[in-house]
Amino acid sequence: MNPDNIRFVLVNTTHPGNIGGVARAMKNMGLRRLYLVAPRDFPNEQAVWRAASATDLLEAAVVVPSLEEAIGDCQFVVGTSARARRIPWPLMDARHCAQRIAEASAREQVAVLFGREDRGLTNDELKVCNLHLNIPTAADYSSLNLAMAVQIVAYELRMLQSVAERPACEVDEWDAPFASRENMERFYTHLEEALVDIEFLDPAAPRQLMSRLRRLYSRVRLDDMELNILRGILTETQKWVRRGRESGR
Amino acid sequence: MNPDNIRFVLVNTTHPGNIGGVARAMKNMGLRRLYLVAPRDFPNEQAVWRAASATDLLEAAVVVPSLEEAIGDCQFVVGTSARARRIPWPLMDARHCAQRIAEASAREQVAVLFGREDRGLTNDELKVCNLHLNIPTAADYSSLNLAMAVQIVAYELRMLQSVAERPACEVDEWDAPFASRENMERFYTHLEEALVDIEFLDPAAPRQLMSRLRRLYSRVRLDDMELNILRGILTETQKWVRRGRESGR
Repeated sequence: MNPDNIRFVLVNTTHPGNIGGVARAMKNMGLRRLYLVAPRDFPNEQAVWRAASATDLLEAAVVVPSLEEAIGDCQFVVGTSARARRIPWPLMDARHCAQRIAEASAREQVAVLFGREDRGLTNDELKVCNLHLNIPTAADYSSLNLAMAVQIVAYELRMLQSVAERPACEVDEWDAPFASRENMERFYTHLEEALVDIEFLDPAAPRQLMSRLRRLYSRVRLDDMELNILRGILTETQKWVRRGRESGR
Repeated sequence: MNPDNIRFVLVNTTHPGNIGGVARAMKNMGLRRLYLVAPRDFPNEQAVWRAASATDLLEAAVVVPSLEEAIGDCQFVVGTSARARRIPWPLMDARHCAQRIAEASAREQVAVLFGREDRGLTNDELKVCNLHLNIPTAADYSSLNLAMAVQIVAYELRMLQSVAERPACEVDEWDAPFASRENMERFYTHLEEALVDIEFLDPAAPRQLMSRLRRLYSRVRLDDMELNILRGILTETQKWVRRGRESGR
């Protein structure tokens, strides 16, 4: 994937605030090439305000009077589309489409077209596309804000990069090593002993108590530091029990 | 997944426009439960404007003075977080986290917390969370707009539902069946015959012509209607060749 080969093309945008929101969404996700086809009101303060720290993208934006001028040199053109077309066209959801965009961008110039706030892209505009991209929505309200649609596509492209860059996550990094099985067993033995000491656990009728405690701590995965803390608490508790028993004699 | 068990909680939101953007983003993705913890300015016209057709979510929003009141009855709490914490916490990207949220929502009340525009969630707020959610961004500009962050998380939740609802896409549905191998072969035979007829293809020195044409048409996957159109063109062309030859005699 080469983000420098990917341009986002906004066609006839009405609200300049959306252009600013688009610039920010793109920069957040590592994309920089913004084309504006006959925007109604640009440059504009609202765009600058919504762009936040992405005003550099607004300044570098290429403003052209027609779609053809925005995509003439592109080998792969994707059009975002909410509606089902009368002429069916290859249609993919944003996730699968991002994969295609990423692949094509390795060698080719790729354009992703976003239509007007109220009407999207026209049928003629959709017909110049190699592929139509659809963002799944709830059935009862499918009209996404323009900048939001851009954000989702940009995010899907980012995810393709970040998957390569870092592991699938879970715990990012931990400040202490997790406890070994061996140390966990020592802890459970100590815990049981202490519970018997404080007469919370009756060895003659233990019921499910230790099972439940084991389940709890195994679910949480203790690290060594936490284990030391818990064992310290047990040791101190046992001291108090001994002290109490001695004084009771 | 049960969307009715998922609430999005905005903590101390400054700009009412963002609250409106959040409402729209949620409704677009089939989520409805919005909680506002001590918003600076709500209700507000800007929120209504940005909400577009999601003003019902604004009207139903639960406004509370403290975070505890927003999440007291929740069994699973997720906090969105851009920064690395001093105390590491289980951290997942939005995609993996959405899976956890969806699973938990089948039986439990789930809250997803979104912090202030400028500072996100405080350390104390992040400490009440079971899991931290991170949205991957470009290294040089990681500060997402609040409503954009909501949009991405809501979209990931939507994707989990839509995967179940429909196939992985490719071609959504086509208005004519795709051509069979057999009919494609008949077409290639016809095409070759016609190219010889018009003396574009020299059977004595065919070079790579037919291979190239085969590659072209196999890449595009013709449907039956398109195939009939192309064969109709070939038939008509051949008629003209015959006519021309007859008149030339």
